[in-house]
Amino acid sequence: MTRFIKKATEKIGLHPGALIHVGEKKVDKTRIRIIDYSENQLEETEVNTIEDIFPYRDKNNVTWINIDGLHDVGVMEKIGEHFNLHPLMLEDILNTDKRPEIEDYGEYIFMVIKMLYYDEIEKIVKVEQLSIVVGNNIVFTFQERVGDVFNPLRERIRKGKGRLRKSGTDYLAYALLDTIVDNYFIILEKFSDAIEAIEDELINSINKNTIKEIHRMKREMVFLRKSVWPVRELVNGLERSESALIDESLSIYIRDLYDHTVQVIDTIETMREMVSGMLDIYLTSASNRMNEVMKVLTIMASIFIPLTFIAGIYGMNFEGMPELHASWGYPFTLSLMLIVAISMILYFKRKKWL
Amino acid sequence: MTRFIKKATEKIGLHPGALIHVGEKKVDKTRIRIIDYSENQLEETEVNTIEDIFPYRDKNNVTWINIDGLHDVGVMEKIGEHFNLHPLMLEDILNTDKRPEIEDYGEYIFMVIKMLYYDEIEKIVKVEQLSIVVGNNIVFTFQERVGDVFNPLRERIRKGKGRLRKSGTDYLAYALLDTIVDNYFIILEKFSDAIEAIEDELINSINKNTIKEIHRMKREMVFLRKSVWPVRELVNGLERSESALIDESLSIYIRDLYDHTVQVIDTIETMREMVSGMLDIYLTSASNRMNEVMKVLTIMASIFIPLTFIAGIYGMNFEGMPELHASWGYPFTLSLMLIVAISMILYFKRKKWL
Amino acid sequence: MTRFIKKATEKIGLHPGALIHVGEKKVDKTRIRIIDYSENQLEETEVNTIEDIFPYRDKNNVTWINIDGLHDVGVMEKIGEHFNLHPLMLEDILNTDKRPEIEDYGEYIFMVIKMLYYDEIEKIVKVEQLSIVVGNNIVFTFQERVGDVFNPLRERIRKGKGRLRKSGTDYLAYALLDTIVDNYFIILEKFSDAIEAIEDELINSINKNTIKEIHRMKREMVFLRKSVWPVRELVNGLERSESALIDESLSIYIRDLYDHTVQVIDTIETMREMVSGMLDIYLTSASNRMNEVMKVLTIMASIFIPLTFIAGIYGMNFEGMPELHASWGYPFTLSLMLIVAISMILYFKRKKWL
Amino acid sequence: MTRFIKKATEKIGLHPGALIHVGEKKVDKTRIRIIDYSENQLEETEVNTIEDIFPYRDKNNVTWINIDGLHDVGVMEKIGEHFNLHPLMLEDILNTDKRPEIEDYGEYIFMVIKMLYYDEIEKIVKVEQLSIVVGNNIVFTFQERVGDVFNPLRERIRKGKGRLRKSGTDYLAYALLDTIVDNYFIILEKFSDAIEAIEDELINSINKNTIKEIHRMKREMVFLRKSVWPVRELVNGLERSESALIDESLSIYIRDLYDHTVQVIDTIETMREMVSGMLDIYLTSASNRMNEVMKVLTIMASIFIPLTFIAGIYGMNFEGMPELHASWGYPFTLSLMLIVAISMILYFKRKKWL
Amino acid sequence: MTRFIKKATEKIGLHPGALIHVGEKKVDKTRIRIIDYSENQLEETEVNTIEDIFPYRDKNNVTWINIDGLHDVGVMEKIGEHFNLHPLMLEDILNTDKRPEIEDYGEYIFMVIKMLYYDEIEKIVKVEQLSIVVGNNIVFTFQERVGDVFNPLRERIRKGKGRLRKSGTDYLAYALLDTIVDNYFIILEKFSDAIEAIEDELINSINKNTIKEIHRMKREMVFLRKSVWPVRELVNGLERSESALIDESLSIYIRDLYDHTVQVIDTIETMREMVSGMLDIYLTSASNRMNEVMKVLTIMASIFIPLTFIAGIYGMNFEGMPELHASWGYPFTLSLMLIVAISMILYFKRKKWL
Repeated sequence: MTRFIKKATEKIGLHPGALIHVGEKKVDKTRIRIIDYSENQLEETEVNTIEDIFPYRDKNNVTWINIDGLHDVGVMEKIGEHFNLHPLMLEDILNTDKRPEIEDYGEYIFMVIKMLYYDEIEKIVKVEQLSIVVGNNIVFTFQERVGDVFNPLRERIRKGKGRLRKSGTDYLAYALLDTIVDNYFIILEKFSDAIEAIEDELINSINKNTIKEIHRMKREMVFLRKSVWPVRELVNGLERSESALIDESLSIYIRDLYDHTVQVIDTIETMREMVSGMLDIYLTSASNRMNEVMKVLTIMASIFIPLTFIAGIYGMNFEGMPELHASWGYPFTLSLMLIVAISMILYFKRKKWL
Repeated sequence: MTRFIKKATEKIGLHPGALIHVGEKKVDKTRIRIIDYSENQLEETEVNTIEDIFPYRDKNNVTWINIDGLHDVGVMEKIGEHFNLHPLMLEDILNTDKRPEIEDYGEYIFMVIKMLYYDEIEKIVKVEQLSIVVGNNIVFTFQERVGDVFNPLRERIRKGKGRLRKSGTDYLAYALLDTIVDNYFIILEKFSDAIEAIEDELINSINKNTIKEIHRMKREMVFLRKSVWPVRELVNGLERSESALIDESLSIYIRDLYDHTVQVIDTIETMREMVSGMLDIYLTSASNRMNEVMKVLTIMASIFIPLTFIAGIYGMNFEGMPELHASWGYPFTLSLMLIVAISMILYFKRKKWL
Repeated sequence: MTRFIKKATEKIGLHPGALIHVGEKKVDKTRIRIIDYSENQLEETEVNTIEDIFPYRDKNNVTWINIDGLHDVGVMEKIGEHFNLHPLMLEDILNTDKRPEIEDYGEYIFMVIKMLYYDEIEKIVKVEQLSIVVGNNIVFTFQERVGDVFNPLRERIRKGKGRLRKSGTDYLAYALLDTIVDNYFIILEKFSDAIEAIEDELINSINKNTIKEIHRMKREMVFLRKSVWPVRELVNGLERSESALIDESLSIYIRDLYDHTVQVIDTIETMREMVSGMLDIYLTSASNRMNEVMKVLTIMASIFIPLTFIAGIYGMNFEGMPELHASWGYPFTLSLMLIVAISMILYFKRKKWL
Repeated sequence: MTRFIKKATEKIGLHPGALIHVGEKKVDKTRIRIIDYSENQLEETEVNTIEDIFPYRDKNNVTWINIDGLHDVGVMEKIGEHFNLHPLMLEDILNTDKRPEIEDYGEYIFMVIKMLYYDEIEKIVKVEQLSIVVGNNIVFTFQERVGDVFNPLRERIRKGKGRLRKSGTDYLAYALLDTIVDNYFIILEKFSDAIEAIEDELINSINKNTIKEIHRMKREMVFLRKSVWPVRELVNGLERSESALIDESLSIYIRDLYDHTVQVIDTIETMREMVSGMLDIYLTSASNRMNEVMKVLTIMASIFIPLTFIAGIYGMNFEGMPELHASWGYPFTLSLMLIVAISMILYFKRKKWL
Repeated sequence: MTRFIKKATEKIGLHPGALIHVGEKKVDKTRIRIIDYSENQLEETEVNTIEDIFPYRDKNNVTWINIDGLHDVGVMEKIGEHFNLHPLMLEDILNTDKRPEIEDYGEYIFMVIKMLYYDEIEKIVKVEQLSIVVGNNIVFTFQERVGDVFNPLRERIRKGKGRLRKSGTDYLAYALLDTIVDNYFIILEKFSDAIEAIEDELINSINKNTIKEIHRMKREMVFLRKSVWPVRELVNGLERSESALIDESLSIYIRDLYDHTVQVIDTIETMREMVSGMLDIYLTSASNRMNEVMKVLTIMASIFIPLTFIAGIYGMNFEGMPELHASWGYPFTLSLMLIVAISMILYFKRKKWL
């Protein structure tokens, strides 16, 4: 449940822009990695103190500053002060329960998006918040902990192939978003596999866990949807943005990104429908099983109860029961029982219960 | 149910703007508290008679007049007359069943919003209506009873930190709304905890109260949604407002407030889906339990009914029953019974009922 | 069902504007009441022949002509001719199955709205159609039968308080609509009470009528919604109207009316959700009761069937049954039965069925 | 099912505008009826060869050419050629599975609409496609077979009352649509009656057919909705049309038609909700009946199983059973049985099962 | 499930426009077919190397280049280079999991659409992606494997009838889309037949497969909808396109295509409702069958349990049972049993269970 709403009680009553980290502390130390590049140059460093990143403010190259770990409010305050980030923006970066969105602060474009990881052990989707601040020559990314999702992107910067090294911060921001959205497809594949596995179970051997699995799946879908749905608005906002920070030539890439996002959402909706369908199948098969149980009971009872009654009659101790003393009594009674039993069986056969 | 619609029968047929207090009387005496401030000055008083607030009309400072208790129609009439508030506005302030909304009356902007409290004992959400009237240099807040939700805000005014003391009535109005919306998150956390508790129950030990709890939760969600949903429109209306009372520079704050409101609504929708999911889980587990009960009955009946029938046969008093007199009769019959019982058990094992 | 669609078969094939009264005849004689007023004057009369209203066409005062009873097509034709009402308008006035709507005919604004009454005996909502024709100095209201819902409004005109006597026909039309919408709240309160009563039943003593009550309620909600929902469009149309008949200064009142209408619709939707919720509660409690019934059966059968079987064994008449002749036979068998019974009870206790 | 999609396989791969009749052949011979009228003139004929209608192209009167039977592609081709109808329009006329819509072809306005008939024997709604082509002085109507729905309209033309004879082709087209929509109300009344009948069954005597009737109704509703829903768009398109063929003065009539269409749709939606409600009632009453069945079984079994067990005990043949020989044995056992039976009955009474 | 999301894991981290074929390899060799035509000329060839198509770039005729097989990335790269296709477009062509859409790349219009085939053996819908690139004098179509859906279109080009040979690439593109959408109707007919078959089963002989069939159908509907729904947007995008590549005169054809697409979607929605309806019928009939089973059990048990009890009483071995020795004892007991049995039967008859 903590994935759905985070405790933010201590924030109430503070003035807007007050910096408080909402969420759990996921790393011990804030890690700051810098990649500074132009078409011909490339510098990659990891700095220890926040002051080391200040010089990059005034360089002309594209500088990507990636900050892992958000618990150190002091670091955030210094960055905000030196790079002139709006207090509300800083507040949102620290509030890891933020909804994905885009906000144009004039000098900077601010984007919040969710990175999703599939936890194979707990079988749940885990979420990390990524904040992207795009300036004129600088891009900040704020992550909750050290992740490896951007490693292929770093590799692309190093290799210098494609448009990336030749373009500005806007293309880097696009590449970051693209990487995140591509990553969503991996999550979807995991779910696709899981749905297939449950479907096999539904056909072959329903057990007590099947229904739990279906409900777990349904719930993860709710979570997935909540995380991904607003990304469409975000990308749409980026496309319609009139900010000078976003170059015209980028629009074809952003539209492509938009299409991918819509595809992710489409697939989630389709999966939701399939999971609902599985719940229906489970319920009908449960009802069918119940029916079968009832039929066995009814057949057994309906056959043997009349027979037992007949046996009961001739177990009575009345004196004047002529049948008891006739030689045909016992065989006749047994035959009668046989006839009753066969009639019942035929009756059930005609009703297609047997 | 009284939370959903309040008795307003006595209002019918009165001319619009007729002042009648709709709702229960929650305080004995109307309490009037005034905070008057500018960047350098601060005056905080509590007045006894309504006439004491009249001089603030023409002061240049920002004056926040908070009125707790709405039952005294005379007080409202005097305020309306002196401060030139529109009769429809006064009518709406007194009608505590009003839907959250914003209305531009030219000289004043009028907002109605709901404050929510979680009643830990009755386990329901309680609602108080807050009306905010924003004028050029004066802000009125009308509450149904003395509350403490604005205490941190008062503290911020006293301390004078942040933008609050330097800004006008528009920022104060924003700060009031922000406090209310922040407060919603506290309610959501309470519900989040309650949902978690029910989920634990669902997994570990379903009891009769579980279903009542789920339904209670579902209902509170309906209530919550009804109270919060229109706030989005309110904030949106504030953002698009062209009133001279709202300064341009406030728009980034209002957008932030809008995002928070959307987040609250999103979370409520997610919770609604989770509660529906829990109802499904409850129903499937109820159906599973029923199935189990039926199986026990069927197994017991199916094993013992044929055995009892066999015993019945040899309890008959016919004379010509050779088995009764044979020495192998009794052991043979017992063995037959054993074979029948074992066959049934094997049958049920194959059907996976055992 | 007659409330949902009225027989209009005889209308087919007639030219548009052909006057036929659709609906049942609810009064014997058409009753025509006139109130003619200006700020200083007031004249109230009831006329017998339709020709008596003709002189009011050319008077400068505001004239409100209220006509109760629609079955006399001749009366309608004469009014239409003299006051130049469009044939389609007259056709709509007579068709009492009309959907609430507003239509601008240039010289007149035409509005159709539903008056709702709660029939305490049949426990259903009854509907009467009210048509309002607003002209420059004249307002017609057409009702199906003599009603008393406008009496307080008449009283207000007589007393002359408020804006009413000082304003024109547009304000009178607004006041009429406002009275109708205020009236809706009374219906909602009745339903609110009824829902509360059903909820009490659901908790305390479900009986056969409970489900019928819930379904009746659900159905009334469908009906209520169908009648009230289009009123929102109507009021909205009035607000956006560019007709010269509606003065600018009225817009704040119309907006207020709009808010009230939205509140009515909101409340209906909330009630719908609550009624659905009650249906769910009913169904789960029905399923729980079934479960309980099954448990009692299973427990009884599972305890006594094995015991009866044991008794059956020693009721057999075999000769070689040593137990029968042993002195410990009877007490041992009784003890065995006791042990079996206790084991079953413990088993059910462990399963929490007892 | 054939009502929902018609076989059009042979059409695949043909160039657009290729004329193929999709649907079943409903009449033997194409029947062509002509009404040619102006305010003062009226000529009504039925022609045998298609060439006979050609002279009407250049006459100034309004000419309504009604063609019943669509299977003769040759006729269509000739009309198309002579009157310059677009091939796509002809293709749509012949494809009787077309969705209702309006298309402006410049020289002509083309409308497709569904005529509905209620088949009293099969108790289903049957549909015929009507295509209306409105030209400057000519209106074509294409029907699948000879119908009588326009007879009253023909009568109105003959009598010459109302606006019809004085107006142009646009008013005739409106009158045709109006007749169709008025006709929908007759279908709705039939359904209204059918729903009422099912409701009576639900309350008085549910039988096996009830559920079939409900499902049949539900399905007819799906069909009705599919046929009527797009008519709203059609009429709306007509209102917003900027074609010179539609006179300004017609707009008030079209708005009226639009309102009627909305009313039809509204009523269908209401009926859908009512049918759903009836399904719910059926299911809850089915569940209640099941509950009752289970109660009878449980009560019978719970009372007699213990009694039978007691009887079983004293049917045992043990030697040392002192009760058997005591004189109080039999009466005591009978009393014991009575007490057990009464206890069970009281238990069930307390549980309110009796 | 592979139909719902295709593995694209290897794509993550590549720069946008990186060419990787997503999907299974469906043909061994890429097959390239060219049709080059003007009103008077026609040339049809199949080339072996990709370089053979380069000369067509600068010809004035309309050239349709159809490429079957997408696995050869090299071929795509060469085409892209020579014809100046945007890398993102090439990437989308190779990603066969793309959502149908239209994209305007200035020099080219790019469309992705799904071709659907009904696999009669597996009874599922199979999908192939078709990409259409429309240039000034050239149209590319990229298919996953060699298909025959366009054969009738080729035939039309050869015959030269209709507008096709006289028009440009835009009309060819329209004709391609039209063929695809016409093809959807064939799929719908197959489903229509399948739904009819299931309905027959539902009425005549429900078996275990019925529910599987219904669920399979429901799932295919989800898949169908996912594939077809975005086509509406595509065609709409084509209509609103301001590209110079699309001639004004085409708009009437595109609107016609749009109507067909809406009709396909409408039919899918109707089928979805019908399949849901069938699920409801299945569930109610399952519940009815259960009810019937329970009734049989209850009737059998309720009749024979009391009788068996009576027999049990007189099977007791008490000494002082006068009835046992009376001559009327046995006949009286039998009569008593008969009376009990008849009473029970009458009771069940009155309850309408028999």
